[in-house]
Amino acid sequence: MTVTPSSALSSHSSAGRTASGVLSPVRIAVDCMGGDHGPSITLPACQAFLARHPDAELVLVGLPEAIRPAAHWPRVTLVNASEVVTMDDPVEVALRRKKDSSMRVAISQVKATADQPAAAHACVSAGNTGALMAVARYLLKTVEGIDRPAIATVMPNQKDGFTTVLDLGANVDCSAEHLLQFAVMGSALVAAVDGKDNPTVGLLNIGEEVIKGNEVIKQAGELLRAAHERGLLNFHGNVEGNDIFKGTSDIVVCDGFVGNVALKTSEGLAMMMATFIKQEFTRNIFTKMAALVAMPVLNQFKKRVDHRRYNGAALLGLRGLVFKSHGSADAFAFEHALNRAYDAARHRLLDRVHDQIAATLDSLPSGDQDSAAGVGQAA
Amino acid sequence: MTVTPSSALSSHSSAGRTASGVLSPVRIAVDCMGGDHGPSITLPACQAFLARHPDAELVLVGLPEAIRPAAHWPRVTLVNASEVVTMDDPVEVALRRKKDSSMRVAISQVKATADQPAAAHACVSAGNTGALMAVARYLLKTVEGIDRPAIATVMPNQKDGFTTVLDLGANVDCSAEHLLQFAVMGSALVAAVDGKDNPTVGLLNIGEEVIKGNEVIKQAGELLRAAHERGLLNFHGNVEGNDIFKGTSDIVVCDGFVGNVALKTSEGLAMMMATFIKQEFTRNIFTKMAALVAMPVLNQFKKRVDHRRYNGAALLGLRGLVFKSHGSADAFAFEHALNRAYDAARHRLLDRVHDQIAATLDSLPSGDQDSAAGVGQAA
Repeated sequence: MTVTPSSALSSHSSAGRTASGVLSPVRIAVDCMGGDHGPSITLPACQAFLARHPDAELVLVGLPEAIRPAAHWPRVTLVNASEVVTMDDPVEVALRRKKDSSMRVAISQVKATADQPAAAHACVSAGNTGALMAVARYLLKTVEGIDRPAIATVMPNQKDGFTTVLDLGANVDCSAEHLLQFAVMGSALVAAVDGKDNPTVGLLNIGEEVIKGNEVIKQAGELLRAAHERGLLNFHGNVEGNDIFKGTSDIVVCDGFVGNVALKTSEGLAMMMATFIKQEFTRNIFTKMAALVAMPVLNQFKKRVDHRRYNGAALLGLRGLVFKSHGSADAFAFEHALNRAYDAARHRLLDRVHDQIAATLDSLPSGDQDSAAGVGQAA
Repeated sequence: MTVTPSSALSSHSSAGRTASGVLSPVRIAVDCMGGDHGPSITLPACQAFLARHPDAELVLVGLPEAIRPAAHWPRVTLVNASEVVTMDDPVEVALRRKKDSSMRVAISQVKATADQPAAAHACVSAGNTGALMAVARYLLKTVEGIDRPAIATVMPNQKDGFTTVLDLGANVDCSAEHLLQFAVMGSALVAAVDGKDNPTVGLLNIGEEVIKGNEVIKQAGELLRAAHERGLLNFHGNVEGNDIFKGTSDIVVCDGFVGNVALKTSEGLAMMMATFIKQEFTRNIFTKMAALVAMPVLNQFKKRVDHRRYNGAALLGLRGLVFKSHGSADAFAFEHALNRAYDAARHRLLDRVHDQIAATLDSLPSGDQDSAAGVGQAA
């Protein structure tokens, strides 16, 4: 059962927008049941988030007994759901059977109808990615001009900034047009969340000395160059895997298979290196003493590469803002996901994606969206 | 101009094979001019290699004045070449114009003809990958049953071993049959070089919770399962990017685009982490003192992840053994590439690939090698 919050806002309406163009207050719907730990981490994260953002409001969605502790918090609306999508639930279960899941109810908060604006500006869930994408896509539909939503995340780079990478696994078979759409959406995301105007876009490719990429990549390069020439985005050119961490471009665009492999490979390497460092420093009494001395320095290092700081992947291309937290996120990490959703909503990411896609479609004769270009795949 | 070495051996002949089945002596042809540094690193590496392997012989190929210092070394034959393929030379230049390059002459040493066995059992070059693959493929041709050669390299894993990954960029568009061939060749490589019988093969895929891979991956999974059931290889199942560093399977098979991105992304992350560690330890006088204390531990760590220790990628599927050293390799790294070539030749990798591919073709009705399966790409 759903209790609709009393006041409702839409990011598409100008109501609630301040003179500077940012939206205030910002209302975020939270799937409190999602992730490996559920309310035990989402609720503390929400509390910390509210303390940090005086103009934020939260719509907390979950089983009644689970969200009750937050009943008397300020700037909070509770919305009950009777079911929970587990991390192992197949997409079909989330989509067809659990129609009153906290995930689904949370997403429905950002859905605007002809009669009624959306109840929240963005939604955050740590639930399973496949279910989240499927339910969000089903409920919200895609923005006009977007064939397929994409998942975008940030990775730290050597410039002490972040590189935004998309797609991360929503689309395994992409055409050149899809990659162009990812570039446009990624640009809007970085402009909104990181406040960077005209961010640069790199197209992920492989060492030119080996081979210059396949047909889809070449066509995508042409589309991106054309968009660049028309001032629709800032195309840097081809980049390679190592450029993600060099910070060569603000955004790196690739198909979902490649993006997912790059992300998981990075996670694996980071974990291996962390394990090795730990093993070396705990090897014997002397190395343990060295560890004591080196601890403050190692902690500084750890902080810089702490993956919790860049938690919160954006599901882009939907008619509503949905952010995905890592399933294993702790409260610190989940709060970061809330922050990203807040920044995106505050800086009107939805309008930006909508406007930039519309401008691109007007300007570029992109042809049939699922044209033959989609057949030869972006390997 | 080429001076053919006086004695010639073939890995396909039983001559020179010891009772234990290993080949001895082993003769390696070295492109002394390849890489960023040429003879200044290749020659010292060759000298160290010879000292370590009393049954090894080297065929040193290069400009006469460059290789002259090695003229009086024991177990060495000098072969002159009049040209050098630069790191920037396009494939066409290496292939069509520089017909007496050190790279080409070195590769030609491992080519056997109907009349004459090959002059060397394996060849090592640090020259540019595209040129090396093209020239090797042109001169040596592929093994029967192999459509496309692949590049295989090793990455360190959390089990303190190595994971062999292929393809690394030779093939951007792969069919399921190609992935099966990579699996067979990778198994032969690991058995020969790492001495591991019946190594496990993982098929690189993306998180099942998102989507279960595309058509090519699914078909490849079926082919690999069938090969496993017939005892042709040891298929572990699907793996994800992080499994490369976990060491979940001995071999990880993927198309060249994905493999190249995974490799380059890993290199980029490792470099960023090394930079961050260095920055933190050199930040001020206190951190520098901590660095002094931690240095021996950090050096142990560095040694474990030292990429020079796993230098030497194998070009598999050719009728001759060719190993590629990183272009920027130092003498220590180049010697490791020589070691890998030596191990491969000594344990008759060429015969193993040949035999295993033949057995697979006999046993599995693989159908049209470039069938429709090759159209929908392994993204």
